[in-house]
Amino acid sequence: MPREQQAHEGAAPVRVALLGAGTVGAAVAQRLMDRADLFAQRVGAPLELTGIAVRDLGRPRDLSGILPGLLTDDPESLVDQVDVVVEVMGGIQPARGLIERALRGGADVVTANKQLLAQHGSELEALAAGAGRRVEFEAAVVAAVPVMRTVRDALAGDEIRSISGIINGSTNYILDMVARQGMPFQEAVRQAGDLGYLEADPTEDLEGLDAAAKIVLLARAAWGVDVGLDDVQREGISGLTDADFESARGTGQVIKLIASAWRSGPASGSASDSAAGPVSGPRIEVAVRPTLVAADHPFGQTREGTNMVIIEAESAGSLRLSGAGAGGDETASAVLGDLINVARSRVAARD
Amino acid sequence: MPREQQAHEGAAPVRVALLGAGTVGAAVAQRLMDRADLFAQRVGAPLELTGIAVRDLGRPRDLSGILPGLLTDDPESLVDQVDVVVEVMGGIQPARGLIERALRGGADVVTANKQLLAQHGSELEALAAGAGRRVEFEAAVVAAVPVMRTVRDALAGDEIRSISGIINGSTNYILDMVARQGMPFQEAVRQAGDLGYLEADPTEDLEGLDAAAKIVLLARAAWGVDVGLDDVQREGISGLTDADFESARGTGQVIKLIASAWRSGPASGSASDSAAGPVSGPRIEVAVRPTLVAADHPFGQTREGTNMVIIEAESAGSLRLSGAGAGGDETASAVLGDLINVARSRVAARD
Repeated sequence: MPREQQAHEGAAPVRVALLGAGTVGAAVAQRLMDRADLFAQRVGAPLELTGIAVRDLGRPRDLSGILPGLLTDDPESLVDQVDVVVEVMGGIQPARGLIERALRGGADVVTANKQLLAQHGSELEALAAGAGRRVEFEAAVVAAVPVMRTVRDALAGDEIRSISGIINGSTNYILDMVARQGMPFQEAVRQAGDLGYLEADPTEDLEGLDAAAKIVLLARAAWGVDVGLDDVQREGISGLTDADFESARGTGQVIKLIASAWRSGPASGSASDSAAGPVSGPRIEVAVRPTLVAADHPFGQTREGTNMVIIEAESAGSLRLSGAGAGGDETASAVLGDLINVARSRVAARD
Repeated sequence: MPREQQAHEGAAPVRVALLGAGTVGAAVAQRLMDRADLFAQRVGAPLELTGIAVRDLGRPRDLSGILPGLLTDDPESLVDQVDVVVEVMGGIQPARGLIERALRGGADVVTANKQLLAQHGSELEALAAGAGRRVEFEAAVVAAVPVMRTVRDALAGDEIRSISGIINGSTNYILDMVARQGMPFQEAVRQAGDLGYLEADPTEDLEGLDAAAKIVLLARAAWGVDVGLDDVQREGISGLTDADFESARGTGQVIKLIASAWRSGPASGSASDSAAGPVSGPRIEVAVRPTLVAADHPFGQTREGTNMVIIEAESAGSLRLSGAGAGGDETASAVLGDLINVARSRVAARD
């Protein structure tokens, strides 16, 4: 490594608080230790994990052996003393209150909490903007597949027409088992549950609530509109029957749970928008539904727990992104990517 | 559009100079006009195109009708008066000198110039860092497919193992015509030339020079190492014969021009790296070569001018990105995405 990349030596650390020590939290903590030197080089200063807030200090967990002194059940004090708060505890409260507290106190926030963002993301982003801080959440949508970043940053100079995708791995696993292995539908649901692929409350996956939260976040980022969960035309897969799958198979098609968002109003650059008076945003439709797709379509070829998103934009044309949409390590990759970018900006702003 | 998004009204414009008015330059200029309101909302201030530098003012071009007053053959004066310079003229000089002048003068730079970056990108990035400015170049690698952003930002918290891809659309078009249409190889080369798919100097495409420049830029961003064009193990497609294609077909395979970069040394987080003493960077290999792939592999399924990149990372697993890898509008999308992000940062830094 060239000497100039050692500029972080002696630099004041960026202090990081971790809220939650579940599968994702444990992976984040582990990588912060394993990759400490690498991250310090990339950020220009060391990342210092000052504490990990958990609900129950007494519960045995993998982390206690390696990081015994870092665990705390006092998240407020932790949040008040850091530069960046990484929230991977999930749920609405206390996550929401802690994120608000962090932003008001001058910290940036990285979160993977899709339901919190889908319900209260607009308020949190407004609070962050007012405080001159950031809330980053690549990990909330399709883990490490960089769809948020693509929609918000890469296509910032373009106009997105539509976003569609397989963005729930558990239901895709079930549908793929039925389509390709010929497994009866109810047995595939049971197997996905046994393998731990379904959320604690399986209706999150099976009724499309998880996919709905993600497509809402993507639609907001793509068009700057305030769509919410109630705007989603939502149908899950639990009403499907083996006869539906038989009938799809007979026509060379497969059933996939497709989440989509599309512009049904005029493009921003079009004539009607240039008229005087208040500019009206594009009209956006958002849906999650079981959909017949050709077996050789990219969606039809998306197997097991893999996720795939297709973004159509005026100038860029059709972009496809795919990869694992869940998993502790995969989600940690996205959380850490956001953390490094936020920390880099904080260090750059010191000068 | 909610009222708070009209905050750009009255904000001082971000001044933009465009160097070059070829296919990409014309598309960028056109979109800056068409999407002026949208971009002003996204940036928080209007983007003001102050001029377009061209070599020959007398040459008739599409733009002269719409933007007659903006054309100039004095790029230096133009560069000295703006906040962001967009360089889409191509070639080494005068592009290099103008970019250096822009950075020294306090402007940020957006460029699509892959050969300039492959040859002198490290110096330009060092110059930018020293001046506290940015050089952005998503458009230099696979047009609007956000591979640079994925490698550099999305995976900033991860460790990339390898990057491989079909990153030259012209050669993929040729190889696909031979594989799927059974067209004789030399005829496919001729047709690609007739359709304007090949660079003015076709050896850029056919000998893998274009792909080599792109994979060098990706390798640098992925591992922070100073690999150059000379480090690329490069073999083009011009030595292929119809017999090679026949033999591939016989085994259910197709020939693709695959660019790849991979880590052959230890990972940064591994034990040998934690040892005391100067940290040594990973050993990186870079290659461009015709490669046999299974016809049903994602690379085998990549048709016509489509590009596809597969990134393997320790935590994220395998990510796939695909889309059009060339074209005026597609490249303009990436240029404008970088421009909006750079302009946003400048406006944010005003406060």
